[in-house]
Amino acid sequence: MKENSRVIPFIDPPYFLSFAAVGGREEGEGPFGHLYDHIDESGAFGQKSFENAEGEMQRLCLSLALKKSGLSEHALSLLVAGDLQNQCVASALGLYTFGLPYLGLYGACSTCAESLLCLSLALSHGPFERGAAVTSSHNAAAERQFRLPLEYGGQRTPSAAWTATAAGAFVLGKRGRVKITEGIVGRLIDGAITDASNMGAAMAPAAADSILAYLRDGAHPLSEIDLVITGDLGRTGSRLLCALLAEEGISLGEKHKDCGSLIYDPKHSDSHSGGSGCGCSASLLACHFLPMLERGELSRILFFSTGALMSPQSTLQKNNIFGIAHGILIEREV
Amino acid sequence: MKENSRVIPFIDPPYFLSFAAVGGREEGEGPFGHLYDHIDESGAFGQKSFENAEGEMQRLCLSLALKKSGLSEHALSLLVAGDLQNQCVASALGLYTFGLPYLGLYGACSTCAESLLCLSLALSHGPFERGAAVTSSHNAAAERQFRLPLEYGGQRTPSAAWTATAAGAFVLGKRGRVKITEGIVGRLIDGAITDASNMGAAMAPAAADSILAYLRDGAHPLSEIDLVITGDLGRTGSRLLCALLAEEGISLGEKHKDCGSLIYDPKHSDSHSGGSGCGCSASLLACHFLPMLERGELSRILFFSTGALMSPQSTLQKNNIFGIAHGILIEREV
Repeated sequence: MKENSRVIPFIDPPYFLSFAAVGGREEGEGPFGHLYDHIDESGAFGQKSFENAEGEMQRLCLSLALKKSGLSEHALSLLVAGDLQNQCVASALGLYTFGLPYLGLYGACSTCAESLLCLSLALSHGPFERGAAVTSSHNAAAERQFRLPLEYGGQRTPSAAWTATAAGAFVLGKRGRVKITEGIVGRLIDGAITDASNMGAAMAPAAADSILAYLRDGAHPLSEIDLVITGDLGRTGSRLLCALLAEEGISLGEKHKDCGSLIYDPKHSDSHSGGSGCGCSASLLACHFLPMLERGELSRILFFSTGALMSPQSTLQKNNIFGIAHGILIEREV
Repeated sequence: MKENSRVIPFIDPPYFLSFAAVGGREEGEGPFGHLYDHIDESGAFGQKSFENAEGEMQRLCLSLALKKSGLSEHALSLLVAGDLQNQCVASALGLYTFGLPYLGLYGACSTCAESLLCLSLALSHGPFERGAAVTSSHNAAAERQFRLPLEYGGQRTPSAAWTATAAGAFVLGKRGRVKITEGIVGRLIDGAITDASNMGAAMAPAAADSILAYLRDGAHPLSEIDLVITGDLGRTGSRLLCALLAEEGISLGEKHKDCGSLIYDPKHSDSHSGGSGCGCSASLLACHFLPMLERGELSRILFFSTGALMSPQSTLQKNNIFGIAHGILIEREV
């Protein structure tokens, strides 16, 4: 590892054993809806509150991923998880029934990549054989927590994104076809944004910072990477990312895919700038990008989840919203 | 590592290079007040809000720890941090100025041990040379977030604990005198508690679960361990822990020390069951237990931070409060 490098090479890289994605109505109606393992049109997932529904999404999503791998939960040594709710209660509610060692993370919408990075660290360099990373967000739980209850009917701004009702679960182990070979730890970046309806602008500088860190210190130049995926910058944030990278003389061109810009059909949804929420990048990684790697349609991708660190109080108290972008390099075994 | 063991042996164990503790008025008046590196009587730490004060506590505490080690922040490769505020904004606010790779955790009051465990995993098995773990809580920020604003003057129950206004910061590296040799990953345990003023009862079953896991799978029997420290069970939770361990035929006796029961003088404070908050165990580890290990007054301790996973919403929605206890074994070099 180079001096001051933020890129971690995983000596004994962990492999994806299985993965699953679940979503709500809007995700089901989007371009990837048919690829989700489970869609609940009601978004309630059989629960009495939106908050508990998000917990049930995590439980269901990990159960589906385990089923696909043919493993029981007893085959796992570690769960790493997070969500957007205050104190990450959705993860606790959803995962306690598995009775497994559990590390809770908070990285806002960067949680999917952060959890895969931390789990890779534990599996690659540590003593664990198998583990799972789980991430979720729920539109109704997030809206009433961070902004306004849906019943209020508040007008959304063009820069606002639609928090995905979605979860992704990933079972990692020591053998397989698609592996995580490097991790990029994000930094807290202050882009001087205070508008809780403009997450894309808050996260774009952090995404640029982490992409540049990989291109400087990572094992592969851009020419050897098929796609550079960002989590949920949306259309507003993606334009800003391109502008920031252009200042450094870098153009990702068609290689850049943003999960937030992809998850909904802009013509047939009320998503405005696109999708957001940590379930957005988690579910598209599970239902779209990883299957492409498995089928050999992609061979190497850089996957960044992008988070905006703020609380319901911190924006009212006029604090800036910090961005962070954690990343992983995912490769198909040659 | 044994099959299904939750105990992680750190092959190349990380050492404490330095550590620091900061606190507020009540902590300063407690039995360990003279050992804190900095006490702010006002609890404001020069900030305009309690929430921002907590961020400043993290910044100050890490700066003090770095000063003691003689290192600049550029010597660190990784920060791992967490706090009790919604979306862990105190950690983001406090640490972004360092410009370092950052992993955010959420483990409620288990955060101190969780952050040291995760950092140990990164340093012991991973590519990083040095890193820091930081944890904080702030009484006024926590009370108005989880329960009631202080101005309301609500009566507190006897089982209630006083959330510490305190932070602890730990700089770890590859050489030194006191090291972290094992980690114990906690499990989410449902003790069927719904009372947000009885955290001790919610956490005691998790503490018992993790202590039993270590005694079953750890490298050292109880006879070789000087102290078994719990985070913030308080007097109510400590009594429950003893009862739960007695059912398994185990008595810790005088070896058990609970940071929550120690941090305040019960005769001269309004702390009721004791102290709580993730700054409680973090600050006592930094100002009291680690110096004892450095001076050779202790040679091997099991340190557990205990967390209660709940949100302001989840308790109002009548969800149970889950407990979790992460632990580390700390040894003085022989």
